[in-house]
Amino acid sequence: MNKALVLRSLGLVLLCEAVAMLPSLGIALYLHENAYRAFIISVIVIGLIGVALIRIKVQSNDVGYREGFVIATAGWLFMALFGTLPFILSGAIPGLVNAFFETMSGFTTTGASVLTNVEILPQSILFWRSITHWLGGMGVIVLTLALIPSLKIAGMKLFRAEVPGPTKNKVLPRVAQTSRELYKLYIIITVAEIVALKIAGLSWFDSIIQTFGTVATGGFSNYNASVGAFANPVVHYIIIFFMLICGMNFALHFLALRGDFRSYLKDPETRLYMFITTGACLLITANLIASLGYNAEEAFRQSAFQTVSILTTTGYATADYIQWPFLSQAVIFLLMFIGGCAGSTSGGMKNVRYLILFKTASRQIARLIHPKAVIPVRLGRNVIPEELVGSVQTFFFLYFAILLGCTLVIASMGFDLLSALTAVAASLGNIGPGFGAVGPMSNFAAIPDLGKILLALCMLVGRLEIYTVLVVLSVRFWRTC
Amino acid sequence: MNKALVLRSLGLVLLCEAVAMLPSLGIALYLHENAYRAFIISVIVIGLIGVALIRIKVQSNDVGYREGFVIATAGWLFMALFGTLPFILSGAIPGLVNAFFETMSGFTTTGASVLTNVEILPQSILFWRSITHWLGGMGVIVLTLALIPSLKIAGMKLFRAEVPGPTKNKVLPRVAQTSRELYKLYIIITVAEIVALKIAGLSWFDSIIQTFGTVATGGFSNYNASVGAFANPVVHYIIIFFMLICGMNFALHFLALRGDFRSYLKDPETRLYMFITTGACLLITANLIASLGYNAEEAFRQSAFQTVSILTTTGYATADYIQWPFLSQAVIFLLMFIGGCAGSTSGGMKNVRYLILFKTASRQIARLIHPKAVIPVRLGRNVIPEELVGSVQTFFFLYFAILLGCTLVIASMGFDLLSALTAVAASLGNIGPGFGAVGPMSNFAAIPDLGKILLALCMLVGRLEIYTVLVVLSVRFWRTC
Repeated sequence: MNKALVLRSLGLVLLCEAVAMLPSLGIALYLHENAYRAFIISVIVIGLIGVALIRIKVQSNDVGYREGFVIATAGWLFMALFGTLPFILSGAIPGLVNAFFETMSGFTTTGASVLTNVEILPQSILFWRSITHWLGGMGVIVLTLALIPSLKIAGMKLFRAEVPGPTKNKVLPRVAQTSRELYKLYIIITVAEIVALKIAGLSWFDSIIQTFGTVATGGFSNYNASVGAFANPVVHYIIIFFMLICGMNFALHFLALRGDFRSYLKDPETRLYMFITTGACLLITANLIASLGYNAEEAFRQSAFQTVSILTTTGYATADYIQWPFLSQAVIFLLMFIGGCAGSTSGGMKNVRYLILFKTASRQIARLIHPKAVIPVRLGRNVIPEELVGSVQTFFFLYFAILLGCTLVIASMGFDLLSALTAVAASLGNIGPGFGAVGPMSNFAAIPDLGKILLALCMLVGRLEIYTVLVVLSVRFWRTC
Repeated sequence: MNKALVLRSLGLVLLCEAVAMLPSLGIALYLHENAYRAFIISVIVIGLIGVALIRIKVQSNDVGYREGFVIATAGWLFMALFGTLPFILSGAIPGLVNAFFETMSGFTTTGASVLTNVEILPQSILFWRSITHWLGGMGVIVLTLALIPSLKIAGMKLFRAEVPGPTKNKVLPRVAQTSRELYKLYIIITVAEIVALKIAGLSWFDSIIQTFGTVATGGFSNYNASVGAFANPVVHYIIIFFMLICGMNFALHFLALRGDFRSYLKDPETRLYMFITTGACLLITANLIASLGYNAEEAFRQSAFQTVSILTTTGYATADYIQWPFLSQAVIFLLMFIGGCAGSTSGGMKNVRYLILFKTASRQIARLIHPKAVIPVRLGRNVIPEELVGSVQTFFFLYFAILLGCTLVIASMGFDLLSALTAVAASLGNIGPGFGAVGPMSNFAAIPDLGKILLALCMLVGRLEIYTVLVVLSVRFWRTC
């Protein structure tokens, strides 16, 4: 383990965080908010620790997956821990646990909140809360690129050729080059949505806040009613469009910007994603028209917004789906276990994993019929390596094992089964809202401190695709360092 | 496909069913119940069809897994369909769908019921309803033996050496010999429980009915309050003991009868099963004492009964667990996804599958740390073949995919999420009761016909370990017949 390099990387992460606080400081000063002092202290403290860490002498630039696992896990933890400073120092969020939950929810782009009234908070604090989403989204992009080959995640297929195998030394420069391209794309999408929302009539501030929540598939808003606070349907449609875009593989957008639009159609994961979106949206639209008597436009818009929001693990809401008929509720519940596409900012299991799981299941049936046949699992034209098949199957198991185990703990704190189950599912899948006590118009404030810490860790485990954290937690990992 | 032999086997199955109706006919005649006519017609109809089928000329005695899959699926379906005759002809259960649900629930040893008041039914009809459990349990034993090598189920490890590989012609005689031994054991356990319950004060009839429900891990009772109808705690403890026994691998009991008791301790699956039973039981006991103020004996007994009943997928109840505190509910909910041991009459995922899944997950983590290491998955001293690992992982995925898909359908019929989810889980796992509208003191009567048919098919799919039915349903299977 190249410890010096790990610490130095964490220093860099903290310096980024300090820099990312400067706009919030600017807003506080401009609006004469008292929170400016909290931001000044935070920037100085985090900046100094960051500087101290990057001055550590690095003997070698060797970095492998081993270091990558630790940097990712510790990096997200550091960001969340130090990111609490403005909330605590300004008094905006009372208590370390609440602040940690909110910040982890931000950086993991979950969007679950312990705040019962966000509208009374200073603008600068709300800005910082939302910028954690945007930074988290950036982090996910580089994480996906850097760790994909080792985690066997499948996806980012178009970029795989550019990402080298697990040979040391070569990882960083190629990843850096590719991630620069993706960052540009992320910024282009961000600017496009801000401008679109401004044109639709939102203030610059509202536009920026909702955009941060959308492009990172996060879900924090500066209104208690979430996106429902905006009456203009055009705003809803703009956000639906950008959520949908940001739940797709960014590599495909990259190709589209270069004129290759057919990649969308050729990608099996994107096809499944669009199929699920369309199917769920139509089912709920029909259900809302038939059961609640909505008019067609309203039914479609509410259905599309909630469907896309949950599937992409954003978590914004324009309607309280726990008041919907049971069929619509069941559709939303199902979407919670799917998630967006690999290589996007979304969380959850991801569509590509389900593709692989279904194809593997179909192969298993075929094997029972023809026991001696050798049948590979294919995705489009590619044969999926058996190692990847096993990794995806284990991922599925671990996802549900962690889900059920943590549900037990949350239920022991006095929550009914559905609330407990979906609170964990919403955290592990980086979604935000669940059902029951943690529905889209409720929040996580009522959960005891230990529960909040557990759910915050679930967010981290989900965001880092489970394996990263489990590897770092394993005894075997540290024994051989 | 040796169609003649398949039809002949189904004829044998029907003849067995006709013979199994004779005791009920006897009871009807002895007690002068009108249902005797229903039984006479049923025995004649089923007997004649059975005789017609076994008179089909069989050209060859070749039987492979292909035929096994069809015989198992069609056999259970035939038993359930023809088994409805006494219910329909006597008017005890109104409607074919209700009767089919009840009979399938019986033969699959599920124990879910559409009857709101069983106590008004004729004794002969109740006897037939319970004997479906006992026959179903016998069916499971032979099924496990005959199909295990092809389904790669792991378990019945001790008998594996006796069961030959997938070579034709050799399957039947060895299976027949082993299953004779296991049938003897099944009968010994049955007699032991009947006698024990009689000594504890039950009538012979009550003893036999509760015993059929216990040894098959079924759950049908002749009382609306299930086993709760018996006030004597000794009865509860006797049933707890026999449920526990029947959720274990029968091969281990076979060895114990020959004096080898150490096999229980050496078997990793039995150890996990006992660990889960003990842990769940203690957790709920403590929860009931702390939250509801039960005395220690009552808390322990209620906890043990419900824990063992759900874990072994029996479904008997002495308490309404949906009135318990949320922690206890969550424990019961979790147990619904585990089930008993392979090689028992219980349903569900089975403990051995979880052992393999956890060991595979741990191997996956180890592989991420040492990418070049070749690490086998071990169970005790045995190395689990990779084929089996993949099969178990796919089983886990299919189990949850079917669960979530069918939940959507049941929810669309106007059931809340938790009721819909657990109605499917209770059917697929052959358990019986779930939560909400299908709790232990409720029943499945309120579910619309289409829902009942779907749940009855879930019982079949679960009972035949998913793969059997999926293979028979696949196009590929019939294309090559």
